[in-house]
Amino acid sequence: MRIGLIGTGTVGGGVIDILESKSKSFQEDLGLTLELACICARTDEELAPFKAKGYTVTTSADQMIKDPSIDVLVELAGGYEMPRKWITAALNEGKHVVTANKALLAKYGHELFPLAEEKGAHILFEAAVGGGIPIIRSIQEGFVGSKIEHLSCIINGTCNYILTRMSKEGLSFESVLKDAQAKGYAEADPTFDIEGVDSAHKTALLASLCSRKHVDFEKIHVTGVSSITSADIAYAKELDCSIKLLGLYHASGDRVDARVHPCLVPNDHLLSSVNGVLNAVFLECDNLGPTLQTGAGAGRLPTASAVVADLVSLARSAGKRESIPMGWFQKNNEADLVPIEETEARYYFRFTTQDACGVLANITSILAKNQISIESIIQKDVKDPGKVSIVVITEKTKEKRISSAIASIDALESVSDKSQVIRFLM
Amino acid sequence: MRIGLIGTGTVGGGVIDILESKSKSFQEDLGLTLELACICARTDEELAPFKAKGYTVTTSADQMIKDPSIDVLVELAGGYEMPRKWITAALNEGKHVVTANKALLAKYGHELFPLAEEKGAHILFEAAVGGGIPIIRSIQEGFVGSKIEHLSCIINGTCNYILTRMSKEGLSFESVLKDAQAKGYAEADPTFDIEGVDSAHKTALLASLCSRKHVDFEKIHVTGVSSITSADIAYAKELDCSIKLLGLYHASGDRVDARVHPCLVPNDHLLSSVNGVLNAVFLECDNLGPTLQTGAGAGRLPTASAVVADLVSLARSAGKRESIPMGWFQKNNEADLVPIEETEARYYFRFTTQDACGVLANITSILAKNQISIESIIQKDVKDPGKVSIVVITEKTKEKRISSAIASIDALESVSDKSQVIRFLM
Repeated sequence: MRIGLIGTGTVGGGVIDILESKSKSFQEDLGLTLELACICARTDEELAPFKAKGYTVTTSADQMIKDPSIDVLVELAGGYEMPRKWITAALNEGKHVVTANKALLAKYGHELFPLAEEKGAHILFEAAVGGGIPIIRSIQEGFVGSKIEHLSCIINGTCNYILTRMSKEGLSFESVLKDAQAKGYAEADPTFDIEGVDSAHKTALLASLCSRKHVDFEKIHVTGVSSITSADIAYAKELDCSIKLLGLYHASGDRVDARVHPCLVPNDHLLSSVNGVLNAVFLECDNLGPTLQTGAGAGRLPTASAVVADLVSLARSAGKRESIPMGWFQKNNEADLVPIEETEARYYFRFTTQDACGVLANITSILAKNQISIESIIQKDVKDPGKVSIVVITEKTKEKRISSAIASIDALESVSDKSQVIRFLM
Repeated sequence: MRIGLIGTGTVGGGVIDILESKSKSFQEDLGLTLELACICARTDEELAPFKAKGYTVTTSADQMIKDPSIDVLVELAGGYEMPRKWITAALNEGKHVVTANKALLAKYGHELFPLAEEKGAHILFEAAVGGGIPIIRSIQEGFVGSKIEHLSCIINGTCNYILTRMSKEGLSFESVLKDAQAKGYAEADPTFDIEGVDSAHKTALLASLCSRKHVDFEKIHVTGVSSITSADIAYAKELDCSIKLLGLYHASGDRVDARVHPCLVPNDHLLSSVNGVLNAVFLECDNLGPTLQTGAGAGRLPTASAVVADLVSLARSAGKRESIPMGWFQKNNEADLVPIEETEARYYFRFTTQDACGVLANITSILAKNQISIESIIQKDVKDPGKVSIVVITEKTKEKRISSAIASIDALESVSDKSQVIRFLM
């Protein structure tokens, strides 16, 4: 199998390394020849070290894609428009595609997957979600005898790293983020990660695989982690919970409930002990009961390793295997999403006030007016003199009641800061 | 794809149920037809309900296997000799085989896998290890870009259930076992589970897949859980550990270190929170870092679901996919096992004595003589009047020093009960 690779950055370089170190074992143990036939990057400088090693290199992706001797395109350049063009061209040539580009697939999967199916080609993307976790394979193959009813996942290592350190060390969000940036665990502009956009891309892909409908990532509810404070983390501990940013999927009759937001996860739940940069996917299926897969979410070699696993899979089938039908992944098969207002959860509110007695009466009356039942209340003095923090845990309630109540509560003069609202996982 | 099924018991019945409930979705969503062409059981009574539903049934497995219209044999009868004969016959006919029979594969895999490879047929066995966990697929496909250096797994639900309840409820081994038998979580004769034989079958299979050598289950060291007492569980808690029966694999140069025994697992390790009948497989790979997969280990539908996933996999490839080479799984490619005497670990000893001062001096001098360094000592009065329990934690030490020391210690007149010895996972 002759491979054309676009991108020699972190993951692309990792793929080259692994192919170099494992090609002998693939040959001897599996009888497979994976030949890196051409490497493509933007500039001659980027290509120089690979040229020096004797690889065929090019700065023209178009030319490489047109080469009929190339069987598979590996796209690891990132971005949207160029990869979309390259992958479309490769599929039109009947070439298979391997990519780690979740953003691209979330945005353009609805045109790329049907095209692949039409051309009898495969798009494999194990590396796009949870690099070290073979979750795409598990959903498409391992769990195919079961209907996935619920999925909850930790799929952004940056957020999980920040929340874990806040919890273990009692630090503020800002200080951990700063340190994470210094250590390379967070980007200089961390918006994409901490505001949940990356998680939304991945959740949309997983929800699409689970529902066999096209879940549009732009339509799913997303809340990031930037508003989580060390006070919330401390209260979570008191409630025997951990705060995690989760991607969520529920099969809801004919509709799909997919969202991304922070959750209070009970400490006896398998997801609560997934810490640091680890990713994890928790599933509940009709025939299987609960399962969890956890592993490295990103990083050079875990992600590259998933790309190489896809290449081995293609080489084994030598194009003869039926592709997994992904033709349902198109605009006219779009999932009917449950609007966030209709979703239900137990809720955690945290209010900050200067006048505990009066406010508590106001808050409870607003909650009662919105038919929200209270499960428990924690009231504590906070460090600022004269400020009191009130935490209310509700029973299971519809989101629309919650948002209406919070709007009224935030309008109270005596509630000083914007109220914090976090859902419980269960 | 036309399927011949042997066995209508728990798992066989589950497979029939799932094929009935999912065949429409396999047809519509995946374009696959899985036809249950013939059902075989020992007696007409067992077959009657399926005959009544219109299935073709037979009591002659041989005849079914000879039927050229059958593409795949699903063997769910259990046992050794008959399944060995049937599977051999099916492979000789060029049929693929799906089985959940770990005992058979552990015992006769070295003749069946090479035969399958010779005949270009597949033996799929996802259901043989951790029913609800797609671990066979993960090792053979998802992690193929990485070398597995270490594997530790909880793969016997009965033992994990017993140890979990001992830990959560402070009960004795015997009382939990009795209750587990009453509830159907343990067999009337539980030897196979609690003495680690079942775990050894599965560990040998996993170690074979990881090492690509034949690991003979009869040659791996096995200790079960029947000697674990509530005192050990209580000390484990004090040491911030949980006791788990683990299957272990380490790549050790050209040799393979494979064993089954109870371990003290630190509570911050992912395996420690895998409780009850759940199974789990923890892996460390060169390119991937740590990963954990957990899920139902047994049970009708989880196991049947794994069988069905294998059937879908075969139907998708329609026999055209390269089989995963398993020809290395034969006697003349047997793994060179690290003898248990040469393995190293930190150890936990528990001694019971009537004379704490004198014995402690004796014990420490025996340990010193065997060049065993002590990390810590816990000494406590136990409930029996005049009895004292001494727990010694050692630094990392070779097993042969340990066994020599324990022999000397157990020979001391003042040590009343046989000493308990448990390895730490790390």
